[in-house]
Amino acid sequence: MRNEALKLHKKLLGKIEVNNKIDVKDKRDLSLVYSPGVAEPCREIFKNKETVYEYTSKGNTVAIVTDGSAVLGLGNIGPEAALPVMEGKSVLLKKFAGVNTVPICLSTQESDEIVNIIKNISATYGAILLEDIAAPRCIEIEERLKEELDIPVFHDDQHGTAIVTMAGLINAAKLVNKDLKEIKVVVNGIGAAGSSITKLLLEAGIKEVILCDKEGILNPGTQDLTDKQIELAEQTNPNGEEGGLDVAIKDADVFIGVSVGNILTKDMLESMGDDSIIFAMANPDPEVKPDLAKEAGSRIVGTGRSDYPNQVNNLLAFPGVFKGLLSARATDITDDMKLKVAYAIAKIAEDNGLNDDYIIPDPFDKEVVNRVANTISKLAREKGLIR
Amino acid sequence: MRNEALKLHKKLLGKIEVNNKIDVKDKRDLSLVYSPGVAEPCREIFKNKETVYEYTSKGNTVAIVTDGSAVLGLGNIGPEAALPVMEGKSVLLKKFAGVNTVPICLSTQESDEIVNIIKNISATYGAILLEDIAAPRCIEIEERLKEELDIPVFHDDQHGTAIVTMAGLINAAKLVNKDLKEIKVVVNGIGAAGSSITKLLLEAGIKEVILCDKEGILNPGTQDLTDKQIELAEQTNPNGEEGGLDVAIKDADVFIGVSVGNILTKDMLESMGDDSIIFAMANPDPEVKPDLAKEAGSRIVGTGRSDYPNQVNNLLAFPGVFKGLLSARATDITDDMKLKVAYAIAKIAEDNGLNDDYIIPDPFDKEVVNRVANTISKLAREKGLIR
Repeated sequence: MRNEALKLHKKLLGKIEVNNKIDVKDKRDLSLVYSPGVAEPCREIFKNKETVYEYTSKGNTVAIVTDGSAVLGLGNIGPEAALPVMEGKSVLLKKFAGVNTVPICLSTQESDEIVNIIKNISATYGAILLEDIAAPRCIEIEERLKEELDIPVFHDDQHGTAIVTMAGLINAAKLVNKDLKEIKVVVNGIGAAGSSITKLLLEAGIKEVILCDKEGILNPGTQDLTDKQIELAEQTNPNGEEGGLDVAIKDADVFIGVSVGNILTKDMLESMGDDSIIFAMANPDPEVKPDLAKEAGSRIVGTGRSDYPNQVNNLLAFPGVFKGLLSARATDITDDMKLKVAYAIAKIAEDNGLNDDYIIPDPFDKEVVNRVANTISKLAREKGLIR
Repeated sequence: MRNEALKLHKKLLGKIEVNNKIDVKDKRDLSLVYSPGVAEPCREIFKNKETVYEYTSKGNTVAIVTDGSAVLGLGNIGPEAALPVMEGKSVLLKKFAGVNTVPICLSTQESDEIVNIIKNISATYGAILLEDIAAPRCIEIEERLKEELDIPVFHDDQHGTAIVTMAGLINAAKLVNKDLKEIKVVVNGIGAAGSSITKLLLEAGIKEVILCDKEGILNPGTQDLTDKQIELAEQTNPNGEEGGLDVAIKDADVFIGVSVGNILTKDMLESMGDDSIIFAMANPDPEVKPDLAKEAGSRIVGTGRSDYPNQVNNLLAFPGVFKGLLSARATDITDDMKLKVAYAIAKIAEDNGLNDDYIIPDPFDKEVVNRVANTISKLAREKGLIR
């Protein structure tokens, strides 16, 4: 894999390119594509800014912005080293959703600067895809941009993972005959993904969610919390449990891990409720190997990896999300919309026939992008979140 | 023209698009283009930043950056309305030079912010093309970026125009049998193009250059000059002439106008030296109509328009300039390099046989891009301005 990936990247010299949608064969073409003809759409847009959607690429172009601080599992590798991932995501958005995506890799990792830069470059994009920005600043950056921009902003590491996890959980609960609202869920990891997953679980009406990290169960009194973490602490752990993951996981129906590999012990798994559901999404090593989890009594196991069943793959969400947002000219995406996308994704797997090893659809299933896109654009229109 | 240009832009919905250079047909492709395979080039680039040129699109991708403050002849129309022009330039760079160009239209017009944003987004581009930024801040912004970035920065409105004007002047002087170093040149207009043209005339060894604007001849004592203008004033007008354009132009061999239409009077033209050379590049109305200039005794006339002979068209310079800079992985472009590009462009027309109505090559002449690119990349290598 290593050599093949390097060879391919070396051969391609960039996985994406900027191409012309029109040829320029002679002076006449030139005068339409460039001066003096190009002045006409410029004048129209100057008169009415909204016509930028009618005369330019804005309506079908997304900027994918990273500061290179949390790239894949590689950590803080900087803007240059982040580019292959951004190009890869651009390839996927084009392939799966027909969307143009321009990578913008920032040399600053300072929140105020990142917000300011994105604000100032966003006029000619239809949406902003935040990518691989470290927590907790990714959360603040996204919130500030959502407030300040009139185009949608979506941080995939938070919400892509949350949507697909939620889709899997909807179907897994169905398979084990449990009411989603009555289950106890432990989320381990309070980073970008953990926070967003928790918000979506609450949005879905789940009453008992417990958040953990290496310091133990999150409580409003826990030391050194950020404002956002205090907010999460106040909405979770309704019975005020205290202690470590071993305490939290007792009698839980669901474990969702976005933390580190191999931290779920046999004892912890055995202390869970019947027919327990495990999403062990740490990469490359999951919080527990699926076979070990099954041995310890878990019924349904999903991971982030493609070589196990039930891969929680963001690719199920982000292409359709952006296709839908752009086609509706949406101005925002809400938690409620994300939850309904999760239900739409879950429905596709359900329609195909669920089983313990098939709770989420395959990302190459052509239904996925269109159903997600239609869900998003319909909701944006219903909520009036369009231009 | 107006309706056709609008119709075309409406049909295209963007003249450029981001395309994939590789297909993603199955999970295996996915694992090479995206996770986990994509981590390999990321790791290599993290270990050695220079390998970003080997594994990504950086080496063949230019960011074209505008603040929308001086777009074509339309003025300060903002980032959205500037986009059709940036897309147009992107089309030309792809068509003529095979270069990928990403438009970035800024919502700020504050120099410090523009410099800061470009610095922070530039890591993954091979060069920066500044475009349609108003003078005088465009000059300061370019200078600061050239100092701070390790990739070339080129403001086309300054240097593209200067290079092509210089190319025309080299051949025009030849046709009238005048030694370039001995001629008297009046440059009317002290904006982006006027300043850069003046610097290139001086670089070419022309001793008597006089700069004018609506306040008259530029002198070091002129009121309210910027630092850059004082610098230009000290290098020009060696005989300390004072007064208006009518004084400056007396006995001049060459008039170069980058100002406003119809300001050259018959009297002024008649006061010039024999076989005078006129570059009347104001758009859409030149400083004098070519037929009027000829009637008043001028021998060679160039304009910015394609419907008169001798069109001074930036398209002769910028595609080859960027192709050459990128292929050499150049770190900078100097005034000396720009002058030699002017000579290379002049040589092409000379090889084809000069006459008064043919002093610069046609932009569709296929020789142009390659000769310009070769000139630039050879010089960058000779000067050690490469990575």
